[in-house]
Amino acid sequence: MNGAQSLIRTLVDSDVTACFANPGTSEMHFVKALDDVAEMRGVLALFEGVATGAADGYGRMADHPAATLLHLGSGLANGSANLHNARRAATPMVNIVGDHATHHKRFDAPLDSDIEAAAGTTAGWLRTAARPEDVAGDAAEAVAAALGPPGRIATLILPADVSWSEAPGAAAPVAPAVRATVDEARIADVATVLRSGEPTAILVGGSVTRERGLVAASRVTQATGAKLLGETFPARLERGAGRPDLERLAYLAEFIEMQLSGVRHLVLVDARSPVSFFAYPGRPGDLVPEGCEVHTLATGSEDATGALEALADLIGAPVDGVARTAANRPEIPTGDLDAGKVAAVVGALLPEGAIVVDEAQTAGIYAPGATVGAPHHDWLTLCGGAIGMGIPLATGAAVACPHRRVLTLEADGSAMYTIQGLWTQAREGLDVTTVVYNNGSYAILNMEMGRVGAEAPGPTATSLLDISRPDLSFVSLAEGLGVPAVRVEDAGALHTELATSFHEPGPKLIEAMVPSGF
Amino acid sequence: MNGAQSLIRTLVDSDVTACFANPGTSEMHFVKALDDVAEMRGVLALFEGVATGAADGYGRMADHPAATLLHLGSGLANGSANLHNARRAATPMVNIVGDHATHHKRFDAPLDSDIEAAAGTTAGWLRTAARPEDVAGDAAEAVAAALGPPGRIATLILPADVSWSEAPGAAAPVAPAVRATVDEARIADVATVLRSGEPTAILVGGSVTRERGLVAASRVTQATGAKLLGETFPARLERGAGRPDLERLAYLAEFIEMQLSGVRHLVLVDARSPVSFFAYPGRPGDLVPEGCEVHTLATGSEDATGALEALADLIGAPVDGVARTAANRPEIPTGDLDAGKVAAVVGALLPEGAIVVDEAQTAGIYAPGATVGAPHHDWLTLCGGAIGMGIPLATGAAVACPHRRVLTLEADGSAMYTIQGLWTQAREGLDVTTVVYNNGSYAILNMEMGRVGAEAPGPTATSLLDISRPDLSFVSLAEGLGVPAVRVEDAGALHTELATSFHEPGPKLIEAMVPSGF
Repeated sequence: MNGAQSLIRTLVDSDVTACFANPGTSEMHFVKALDDVAEMRGVLALFEGVATGAADGYGRMADHPAATLLHLGSGLANGSANLHNARRAATPMVNIVGDHATHHKRFDAPLDSDIEAAAGTTAGWLRTAARPEDVAGDAAEAVAAALGPPGRIATLILPADVSWSEAPGAAAPVAPAVRATVDEARIADVATVLRSGEPTAILVGGSVTRERGLVAASRVTQATGAKLLGETFPARLERGAGRPDLERLAYLAEFIEMQLSGVRHLVLVDARSPVSFFAYPGRPGDLVPEGCEVHTLATGSEDATGALEALADLIGAPVDGVARTAANRPEIPTGDLDAGKVAAVVGALLPEGAIVVDEAQTAGIYAPGATVGAPHHDWLTLCGGAIGMGIPLATGAAVACPHRRVLTLEADGSAMYTIQGLWTQAREGLDVTTVVYNNGSYAILNMEMGRVGAEAPGPTATSLLDISRPDLSFVSLAEGLGVPAVRVEDAGALHTELATSFHEPGPKLIEAMVPSGF
Repeated sequence: MNGAQSLIRTLVDSDVTACFANPGTSEMHFVKALDDVAEMRGVLALFEGVATGAADGYGRMADHPAATLLHLGSGLANGSANLHNARRAATPMVNIVGDHATHHKRFDAPLDSDIEAAAGTTAGWLRTAARPEDVAGDAAEAVAAALGPPGRIATLILPADVSWSEAPGAAAPVAPAVRATVDEARIADVATVLRSGEPTAILVGGSVTRERGLVAASRVTQATGAKLLGETFPARLERGAGRPDLERLAYLAEFIEMQLSGVRHLVLVDARSPVSFFAYPGRPGDLVPEGCEVHTLATGSEDATGALEALADLIGAPVDGVARTAANRPEIPTGDLDAGKVAAVVGALLPEGAIVVDEAQTAGIYAPGATVGAPHHDWLTLCGGAIGMGIPLATGAAVACPHRRVLTLEADGSAMYTIQGLWTQAREGLDVTTVVYNNGSYAILNMEMGRVGAEAPGPTATSLLDISRPDLSFVSLAEGLGVPAVRVEDAGALHTELATSFHEPGPKLIEAMVPSGF
């Protein structure tokens, strides 16, 4: 058994059974070893940003890490934007980054670079496997670190000679840390706040945006009149008819200020205190209203859902005192498409158990509202703000959940970062429907140009926010990558194509022509 | 005048007049300011790897930096693979990386990350502009640093508030360092080596692969019988009929060993001592033959060409004692395409003044031989080994040299890293012809799988080196990005399409279907 075999065997023994890969020469022994451990599924990506984004989608849906396999520092760099998103989503992930053989590093060969420095910007756990006899143990620890709450990226740098040299064998799985229980005093303090009668909001995020956490939060807010809010960008929000609805904080600071206006107590439950996504001249970054006290019920490494349940019990909130969303589907619209009609069609058709990957940016603002009364589904968002997540995330979510339809709501500009992911969807026959909102614009930047206080942009600035010259054809791009595709310009056609796609196996891309909203 | 305006004005005053950009909200004032400084050409890329690769191509051809504009740490990460290549090519480049406002950093907003750590892996000069009154001076120093020999990446991190705040004005250009003159004693030492009669090779790289350097090197080797060799991956090699030919070191270590076999003295002239590109079990990394002495005539920061000319004079080499390549074009081939026939067609048609960007990997091995007798042209290669350089590099070279035809020889797997660059070629109407060798395979990895000593790969490993399932259509991809494209399967069709493209303005993609050579 060589180091690569012992590593892969250890990953599989720790239930890591998918590896999203874009290998190079230094990873050839790892690639070869995939054939020796049949339980590991190797999934090829044409670009590393697809591999890391897919591992993020897999981890969010499986609540267990997938592995990536990346080629040296440059492969890591190519995957780093989606690693950034995964870090913000607290997704468990095991990154394997190949490196030159240990005895080759001193030559500073052309592809050599400082991998540890680059990896440190996203990894919560980082190690270079120094010896073949250590690599299996390193891998077991990496999996445990990835799973340790709240979930993190564990990056293991794998020198080629550690991979190809003789190794003693696999290592036993390492038990990850468990979420710490929140102590009763803290729960009692929050109960006191809630009983004060002062305007209070409970802000949930991270692990709490699953059904169990939302039910507990709803019990508390229903019993006390507190306001229930969710973070702007949940990693995975369980929603739909019969579940508590979650009002998310807006993207724009002005709107968050309105949402929090008058709040005297803000209770954080696995959530971060709200700040402006970007800075704007003369506007505040910290969005907690003046005079509002911030209380932390639970952090991301604690059992936040358990703390909410204990809080609900402590204040005597009835177990069935939960605000549940009524089943409701939008009317099917007709006529020329716009972003609102796309949302309505999606809301009318979204199948039970769907996984929605939302990277629609400005075009997507109507989609959550139009789907809240649809059957149970998961909603995955861009936690780190680094665009190019959608198509890869959907790819990994589909690998993790082969019996569920994945729907990607994708902005045109964002789609172009990692369009290569469509090819992996075709290759693996994944049930992913991608709706690209083609408005020919970085619409969000047209909006932001005004918000940052820049005066009316001139022709050069305007042209840098415009992606319609030449027009992109997402149908051609998808077909070039092996994914069947169609362009639609009216709501009826979108309805027909979306309904068909939801009942056909394999990937499909629908290019929805919409006007730019801004 | 705000900080952004003072920065751009300073860049223009320092002759930096092209900016390859993919901006975000934190860069909106910079984008706006582009309209206030008309001399700066803003070129939009759909992905940051295109922007950085284009700046590399521009810098190699202009011998002067272009700027990039990247959005925060994630934008930098997306551009880092091509920054790595530019670092290895010693290309002068000024990277502008936007950051959150200084007063916003403490909030660790979603897109925040450690930009300096990531930038440090590629930058030879790195600074965060701390104050609006400093940013113009920072920019002037960045340009000088980029130009200081041998050329480097100067990365300036630009906080949003430094960009939008009032600033005093532009800064005067800063004179870059000049190449140090090599002292006479070192030249005399090398002359002694050359006169020893022992087998000697002169290895040139970096700044020496232009006509003047190659002429000086040829005088020396013609006069002494020494062997003239070039580095495997020159940043820019001037070649063609009437110029000295340069035998480049091979990519494969086994072949380099043959090329250096019997050499007793290896003279480095702005070149690095040869090492294996990757490590292989049981094979040496240092490729200098046993018993061979290594001498450095000049480093990358010295006047290496001047040193070679002084050496030639010292040993009495005649000024006209230069081995010049005879004009010669290959026969035009017929029948089903293969990589050799593609090379022959290129060699038959390559126009005077062409810029060839070579990222053809295994499929490209015949191209240098088939073009050596073609009219004068430049040959740009993948100095850092991080694939995804070709299409972006060609884009920037075409911006730098609007009156020259650019020909990109592109491998299918590598093309898929940064295919988005075709869109910028269409948008800017650049005269770039891209020939994609479609062999449906990471052919180089099939070869490397054997070379690293991994036994015959099984089905999973084999599938990870295969990109034919589903087949990629580069015609569809190009058309989706606004570039006209055609697929050719025989040599006659390639000849027709290539000849047409060389005489038509604007970009064109030719998908050449070839068998995998390995």
